Amino acid sequence: MNRRQTVLAMAPDLPSRLFVGEVRDHLCAIAVVDPDLALSEFGSPAARAALAEAEVLLTGWGCPPIDEAALTAAPCVRAVVHAAGSIKNHVTPACWERGIVVSTAAEANALPVAEFTLAMILLAGKATHVIARRYRQQRTAPDLRSEFPNIGNYRRTVGIVGASRIGRRVIALLRLFDLDVVVSDPYLDQAQARELGVQLAELDDLLRASHIVSLHAPSLPSTRHLIDRRRLGLIRDGATLINTARGALLDHVALTDELVSGRINAILDVTEPAALPADSPLWTLPNVVLTPHMAGALGVELERMGSYAVDELARYVAGQPFRSPVTRADLDRIA
Amino acid sequence: MNRRQTVLAMAPDLPSRLFVGEVRDHLCAIAVVDPDLALSEFGSPAARAALAEAEVLLTGWGCPPIDEAALTAAPCVRAVVHAAGSIKNHVTPACWERGIVVSTAAEANALPVAEFTLAMILLAGKATHVIARRYRQQRTAPDLRSEFPNIGNYRRTVGIVGASRIGRRVIALLRLFDLDVVVSDPYLDQAQARELGVQLAELDDLLRASHIVSLHAPSLPSTRHLIDRRRLGLIRDGATLINTARGALLDHVALTDELVSGRINAILDVTEPAALPADSPLWTLPNVVLTPHMAGALGVELERMGSYAVDELARYVAGQPFRSPVTRADLDRIA
Repeated sequence: MNRRQTVLAMAPDLPSRLFVGEVRDHLCAIAVVDPDLALSEFGSPAARAALAEAEVLLTGWGCPPIDEAALTAAPCVRAVVHAAGSIKNHVTPACWERGIVVSTAAEANALPVAEFTLAMILLAGKATHVIARRYRQQRTAPDLRSEFPNIGNYRRTVGIVGASRIGRRVIALLRLFDLDVVVSDPYLDQAQARELGVQLAELDDLLRASHIVSLHAPSLPSTRHLIDRRRLGLIRDGATLINTARGALLDHVALTDELVSGRINAILDVTEPAALPADSPLWTLPNVVLTPHMAGALGVELERMGSYAVDELARYVAGQPFRSPVTRADLDRIA
Repeated sequence: MNRRQTVLAMAPDLPSRLFVGEVRDHLCAIAVVDPDLALSEFGSPAARAALAEAEVLLTGWGCPPIDEAALTAAPCVRAVVHAAGSIKNHVTPACWERGIVVSTAAEANALPVAEFTLAMILLAGKATHVIARRYRQQRTAPDLRSEFPNIGNYRRTVGIVGASRIGRRVIALLRLFDLDVVVSDPYLDQAQARELGVQLAELDDLLRASHIVSLHAPSLPSTRHLIDRRRLGLIRDGATLINTARGALLDHVALTDELVSGRINAILDVTEPAALPADSPLWTLPNVVLTPHMAGALGVELERMGSYAVDELARYVAGQPFRSPVTRADLDRIA
């Protein structure tokens, strides 16, 4: 096997977190690489020296844009293998124009997001956060049977907005539970929906029908404020809106109004802006759970992304196609 | 088909919650029953009149003990079909002595407990509650990568204490995730553990190995304070202990000490005593989640238990064995 010249481009703390044990050994077996050196800029002489002979860029969070200047310094690059999800912030048109092939570990990042979402759906179905806060505040158990007669994960409807990579994984996990799943996605047709075992619906109808709504659409100009004030108004009283995707999908001014009124509940792993103002009512509302963009790969879950990326690199080295290639055309519809 | 004289014995609000729509129709088709009348005592003349001809007692939460006096008033009873989990509080030795057959809907109650537990395991794996509280308190995102380097649901160990009905359902759900599952159960042998796809361990070893420990043992004299001060001390630093079973399994004095120290985390759906004193430190500790015994069937989940019980009644009417019979001998090892 012909080991390929490979350079890591990512935040400096990442290589030791992504490539551990056997995965690190595998990487060193298939690539000529310094697994402890990670470029977080492409301009310095040291960086340019490393780039000069690189055939593969193994990238991660914190990788700078791979633009014309970078590729001029790295004329031999034929592949970008990304050990994280979205490639939008580092793959530039210059990569496509040179015919560089691109792979993403988005599958390995989708898994923890789907798991986190599943957990939140199951807990939201029982109004767990609302009940737990009440319990803690009153220090006595509420009468659940009389005060929460309509909760529960049995034959209620979960609406999945976006049959994306993550949306499909959530759907696959939900199959194990006694829940009806409705999906809205402009790219999904009836036959595909049947194959997924879900009901296809227009977004407005999904919002009207669902006890829990979970957002898994990509953040694109066309999906900005996809859930606007009008659509928020369609959501059932008492329903829970879950956002583990992107804050821009939701009009947060309208959302805050709905949440302050107490009419619906929300579990928000992302917000707009990402750094919520300290005086946002969302911080203290009893019907809102806020988490700091943590649904994706975290901690030891980074090892899964590293493993995925090294497997992709191995495919490249063996002359096989990537399992998760990204093309320029994909960028209009993926996150 | 010979419809059987059936009397409901449970809290008065339950029949309309358990037997809904088609399930209620099914009940009325196979039983001579007043589906709106539920006995919550067996002593009044009205109750005794209802009991006089009953062949089946369809029971639920709030059913009084079916003792010698009740059975004297109900001489024709041949079956007790319980539309809930534990039968310990209403089936008495007098039932066994008369050869009455007993069924439980514990399977239908086990499912929501397992789902709730799964959700809590997935969230605990990412330290979600700890991080969410910190985020809410500081109103700014912590640096997750540097401050929580070892979290995540990837190749970490979940310890299941008790391969009970619920424990086995949790194990089945966990198969879908990249987690190693270790089980401790005095009734489980190596071959059975292999069949479940888990590793069998002594309880002490399980506690030492697990990043998350979830209790699913029955509450028996022999399991009182199963997790005592010594065993709490074996749990890894930073691990999360989940109890959706019974408070008595845990020494809460020792548990409170461990939790106050901040060494471990806990998610407690049950406590000892069930009504925690208002001055318990557990109410306010940042590393403790308290929920008010809500993991089991709640809200619309009661319909699943009702459906299960009516299916059991249908088996009895058709002369078939119960799907979930309970015998006197079972009581030594079930919840």
